[in-house]
Amino acid sequence: MYTAEIITVGDEILIGQIVDTNSAWMANELNLAGIKVSKITSVSDSAEAIRTALSEAEKNADTVFITGGLGPTNDDITKKVLAGYFGSTRMVVHEPSLKFIETFFAKRGISINQLNKQQAEVPDCCTVIPNNYGTAPGMWFEKGKTVFVAMPGVPSEMMKMLPDVLTLLKQKTVLPDIFHKTLMTYGISESELALKIENWENSLPKETALAYLPNIETGVKLRLSSYAPDGKAIVEEQFDKLFPVLGKHIYGYEPDTLESVLGELLRKKGATVATAESCTGGRIAHRITSVPGSSAYFKGGIVAYSNEIKVNILGVNPAILEKYGAVSSEVAFQMAEGALGTLNADYAVSTTGIAGPTGGTINKPVGLCWFGIATPEGTKTFARNFINDRQGNIAAASSVALNSLRLKLIS
Amino acid sequence: MYTAEIITVGDEILIGQIVDTNSAWMANELNLAGIKVSKITSVSDSAEAIRTALSEAEKNADTVFITGGLGPTNDDITKKVLAGYFGSTRMVVHEPSLKFIETFFAKRGISINQLNKQQAEVPDCCTVIPNNYGTAPGMWFEKGKTVFVAMPGVPSEMMKMLPDVLTLLKQKTVLPDIFHKTLMTYGISESELALKIENWENSLPKETALAYLPNIETGVKLRLSSYAPDGKAIVEEQFDKLFPVLGKHIYGYEPDTLESVLGELLRKKGATVATAESCTGGRIAHRITSVPGSSAYFKGGIVAYSNEIKVNILGVNPAILEKYGAVSSEVAFQMAEGALGTLNADYAVSTTGIAGPTGGTINKPVGLCWFGIATPEGTKTFARNFINDRQGNIAAASSVALNSLRLKLIS
Repeated sequence: MYTAEIITVGDEILIGQIVDTNSAWMANELNLAGIKVSKITSVSDSAEAIRTALSEAEKNADTVFITGGLGPTNDDITKKVLAGYFGSTRMVVHEPSLKFIETFFAKRGISINQLNKQQAEVPDCCTVIPNNYGTAPGMWFEKGKTVFVAMPGVPSEMMKMLPDVLTLLKQKTVLPDIFHKTLMTYGISESELALKIENWENSLPKETALAYLPNIETGVKLRLSSYAPDGKAIVEEQFDKLFPVLGKHIYGYEPDTLESVLGELLRKKGATVATAESCTGGRIAHRITSVPGSSAYFKGGIVAYSNEIKVNILGVNPAILEKYGAVSSEVAFQMAEGALGTLNADYAVSTTGIAGPTGGTINKPVGLCWFGIATPEGTKTFARNFINDRQGNIAAASSVALNSLRLKLIS
Repeated sequence: MYTAEIITVGDEILIGQIVDTNSAWMANELNLAGIKVSKITSVSDSAEAIRTALSEAEKNADTVFITGGLGPTNDDITKKVLAGYFGSTRMVVHEPSLKFIETFFAKRGISINQLNKQQAEVPDCCTVIPNNYGTAPGMWFEKGKTVFVAMPGVPSEMMKMLPDVLTLLKQKTVLPDIFHKTLMTYGISESELALKIENWENSLPKETALAYLPNIETGVKLRLSSYAPDGKAIVEEQFDKLFPVLGKHIYGYEPDTLESVLGELLRKKGATVATAESCTGGRIAHRITSVPGSSAYFKGGIVAYSNEIKVNILGVNPAILEKYGAVSSEVAFQMAEGALGTLNADYAVSTTGIAGPTGGTINKPVGLCWFGIATPEGTKTFARNFINDRQGNIAAASSVALNSLRLKLIS
């Protein structure tokens, strides 16, 4: 197994001011290239912290990827620390980088200063990896059998540089096979799923690894990884065996979402959908319209937060509203049918519930939500009890609604 | 300085499948509490990797925060590894957690299985930190002078648990003085803001630190921190000076949001609001209804994705629609007035635009959005050109809409 560690340098990460998205992006690219990332470390702009991270990584990894701290200002010390760590005796000007930096500033009409010019200086023991999108060149060091690559922390510059680094790495070594695929499920809990696929999981071939990734909005994702040479075939063969076991709980493979899959089903059928939302407050419509091209099948939605709108626009019967209350099967039914008619769609979903944190009663607790699903074959209702916070209840209810529409379309 | 290290456990981080947002969130919260985060490490679901990370962190930090790997399935091994690391001789059932788990499943109408029950088992040497939002309890260990806290990796559960952990920590030790406050601005860019407050920034007292935190949805946040004993008074005095400089760009202090501030203004005025959304697809309604108690002032909304709905429900004139196109000042105007009338509200906002990635023309490029604001004093329209991706354009447009309503209400 060819391994890597990632070290990101910067105080802004450690005070939580920015999320370290560089690491996730690099980790994904490295895995796709057959390099197993064994550790990600974020350290502050401190010489000692960087040195310690380098020496720990050197013990364990074949390659070490460092980003950040290559800028022109005083708080950027990564280059100096690397020079010391690798025993560089002096800094040398990398002429092509200097030329690039001069052009870079000239193009922008900014006069160049000493700090900018110093960015072209690199430790004499490194190989430069050109930065064609910014002023800090990348640096490649070797120590024993370990390769160290330092890249700028600016995401767009790092992202453009990594492919070049991988090309150099492949000239030096043969990278092993690795393949990942993620199956999307909905409507089954992590533990139910684990019990249902226990036999399958126990009989997975060697060199595969399974992960359960539960999420309130996407459902439980199953990621299967193979380190065998024919990993793609192995993973796909194994996942194929799950379809008879999990049936309609499976809605696709990453990056599919409930809303994108629903969109595909509607598109294929040439059918349209509409929404009538009370407690989800527009969340279902927002998710449906997050999918590019959704105007092809989404007619629109009514956020019927007040009873007045349920009556006046969706045509809910005031007597029914009075008798059963807004959070009821009867009202969910009439909202879904009202949306179907008013918005002139083939399918409609409605929600009416109590998102919380207040507003519950003994009979209708916070988290109760009634759903209506109107289809050309008729309208059905059902209820769920969610026990998350307000945001969680809204998210969960919107997923249940989207999934119920999906199930209707494949039934 | 009281220090912490954060360890996040999960293969999904190391293969780049998820971005480690937990660490950034925790780092921010710990810094707010006066705890300096010196390192963040992400390791795989491997016993050796977790043990190594624990022992390295133990050398350097006063507290170690661990998240992830506490789920019920085979790949979740953190609890077992912690038991071994802290020399636990046996696992014991934590009765309150078991009871909570049983209730948790009963409420959902799901039968509980052995894996679920096992989540209530903890190493005998730990103190349990209750998880009131999920099935994996938190665990507090002490070794020498170091405190270790293991929390679930599900962000919403971890976020609810950390305040309890900090309360326990404050009972045990005195955390240093630190005071942060964050001023919320909207409608001014980071660089404009920096120029406008340059003099103020340069005359800030010692022991204060300013951070600019730009965000597409909230606007630019200004966080001012003071490390002085009377930090609260210092920060508030400094912020007071900004109000004459920034005027209506300021909409509050964290945790205020555009939608919560708008809600307060409507509540005070006893006024109601409604939405008519095309390109934002329900996002504005969703944000308004994310605020608890919003049913007091939100009448509802129409997601008028198709022209048919713009005409039939919002009463947009088909001739106008034909002549000017859906993305136009005229249609935004009629949508806002239509929402005001149809939904019987005092204020209404409308959006019609091209969220992208396709659908633009030379005259109406991707990112163009027309807004309508209807008030008791009349209706106005205006346009903005956004240059983000689809999700970014939807987010930005929803913020502009909410902010415009806010400005109308305070004018």
